[in-house]
Amino acid sequence: MIPVKSYAAHSAASPIAPFSFDRREVGDHDVLIDIQFCGVCHSDIHQARNEWGGSIFPMVPGHEIVGKISNVGSAVTKFKVGDVAGVGVFVDSCRECASCREGLEQYCDKGMVGTYNGYDKGGQITYGGYSSKIVVDENYTLHISDKLSLAAVAPLLCAGITTYSPIMHWKMGKGHKVGVLGLGGLGHMAVKFAVSLGSEVTVLSTSKSKEADAKRLGAHHFAFTSDEQVLKSLKNNFDFIIDTVSAPHDMNLYIGMLRREGTIVVVGLPSIPAPISNFGLIGGRRQIGGSMIGGIKETQEMLDYCTEHNIVSDIELINIKDINTAYERMIKNDVKYRFVIDMATF
Amino acid sequence: MIPVKSYAAHSAASPIAPFSFDRREVGDHDVLIDIQFCGVCHSDIHQARNEWGGSIFPMVPGHEIVGKISNVGSAVTKFKVGDVAGVGVFVDSCRECASCREGLEQYCDKGMVGTYNGYDKGGQITYGGYSSKIVVDENYTLHISDKLSLAAVAPLLCAGITTYSPIMHWKMGKGHKVGVLGLGGLGHMAVKFAVSLGSEVTVLSTSKSKEADAKRLGAHHFAFTSDEQVLKSLKNNFDFIIDTVSAPHDMNLYIGMLRREGTIVVVGLPSIPAPISNFGLIGGRRQIGGSMIGGIKETQEMLDYCTEHNIVSDIELINIKDINTAYERMIKNDVKYRFVIDMATF
Repeated sequence: MIPVKSYAAHSAASPIAPFSFDRREVGDHDVLIDIQFCGVCHSDIHQARNEWGGSIFPMVPGHEIVGKISNVGSAVTKFKVGDVAGVGVFVDSCRECASCREGLEQYCDKGMVGTYNGYDKGGQITYGGYSSKIVVDENYTLHISDKLSLAAVAPLLCAGITTYSPIMHWKMGKGHKVGVLGLGGLGHMAVKFAVSLGSEVTVLSTSKSKEADAKRLGAHHFAFTSDEQVLKSLKNNFDFIIDTVSAPHDMNLYIGMLRREGTIVVVGLPSIPAPISNFGLIGGRRQIGGSMIGGIKETQEMLDYCTEHNIVSDIELINIKDINTAYERMIKNDVKYRFVIDMATF
Repeated sequence: MIPVKSYAAHSAASPIAPFSFDRREVGDHDVLIDIQFCGVCHSDIHQARNEWGGSIFPMVPGHEIVGKISNVGSAVTKFKVGDVAGVGVFVDSCRECASCREGLEQYCDKGMVGTYNGYDKGGQITYGGYSSKIVVDENYTLHISDKLSLAAVAPLLCAGITTYSPIMHWKMGKGHKVGVLGLGGLGHMAVKFAVSLGSEVTVLSTSKSKEADAKRLGAHHFAFTSDEQVLKSLKNNFDFIIDTVSAPHDMNLYIGMLRREGTIVVVGLPSIPAPISNFGLIGGRRQIGGSMIGGIKETQEMLDYCTEHNIVSDIELINIKDINTAYERMIKNDVKYRFVIDMATF
């Protein structure tokens, strides 16, 4: 067994605190990663506080993991000791269903094995990236270029792929008007990708203070959505809106901003269902879609795209001892735009 | 002016009663249709009772119109006296916007001109098909074959195109599993089209009594959706669900029945928004879409398809004096599957 230092939640009500446990030995197909950085995703808070239900404790959150490979199993062919590697939201899946065979493991019929807050095939609780080391099957491990800031690459493993995948799936590029709803960890990545792919990008936000940042990130327009005149001017405007907001909000307002056959894709998970009126959908053959992270193949493609186009997340690097403060600031949207834990602070 | 006999609602609270008015003279591009049959759509009730708001009184409902052309304007090229013709949900549109130019007049930027409960370009109230004659621009008039029962063709002009259009737009055919939610005026047409196009069709209903009819109409399966076991067996099952129910219902249940990338298309208009959870959408990259009737070009295509494949609506022919009783029966879902007014009963 491999002894590991970590920070864990011991119950939905307790703060994140130091915790020691053992990782499994490196199996034939496994790699051992010495974790250098781990991004802090809003879903870490949702799950540590059992806001979606079914949380498993103790819980070591973290699924935006970057580090260096320090050991490989006998059958590993894709990685060698010293490689920079990444781990995202899942570490295994059934590998047999249609989705797994198509490289869409996130939609595995039997359910992907979450990097944390799940059970692996041996029935052991999975522990995530707020830890010093992780053992992962090489087929669920990503190659990371050392050309980019590794700390700023970490959030690509969740925030990056969550926004890249729907933009690619719905084929947004040149000639398309794309709205990005919410400018946070997910939203700021959506802006970078949509701009990079050539779309005309508008950030939709209820915070006027986000305007300067939206423009700095490359957005062509900023729409202050508390202004009635702005709302009117945006009717039938977008081919595509990526909705990154996980607080309850009026979906019908944004559906009305879509052109005919436009799509709004939700990637956030509000805890309350949103009331949807059929009138907006029917009146323009509009659609609402959902999208969840991305498969291993597409995540690698996204990472390679980021290397080629010099795209990383805007981050604030933190000491792991400050994780609880970071959670409080995230709840207040006080982060630009992702906290990343520096594992050297253990 | 052309004197016309009709039945009209004079207020949201009054029954449908005899009403006389004048149609405009036949203009250069107009045809005059002596109406033989008019289907009774549930939206007639919604609008006559002002359930969607904004109703214009007096209101002559009816937008499933079939009749014989008795006069044509000097510039008319597509029709001649004696032709059988049909009129659907709209009688004009701006003719200039992108949607109009693409033959998708139902999504006209300026709003289509409804066959009734609207204003024409001259500012006159439009009166629908519960009447003896109608004057319509030839470009908004459909050709009807006399090979089929004309009474049973009438509902194709709304119930038919409303279900045909989304099935075609989402490209459902052989190899696809299609669910039809609700077996009424719209649902029974959806079954006929989806079966005819080669899909494997399941009728989803809360009324066990609909099973025999579903099978008679050609459905391959019937799912009684009040049975928990049935619901479980339908998870991740359909490529496409056409949701024809206009009463409030649990959309999340049906979203969960879609396969990965499956779409549920709403064509009904419940007066209350439906609460939608993002989990079902995100968990399978599923979509909700909306679709509204069809353009003139596609409506003609649908009518031609029906002639070729011998598809009509299942109807109960009624005397126009019984229209109020028909409304009451429709509200109780007591009609198989569409009332059609026989204008010979005037």
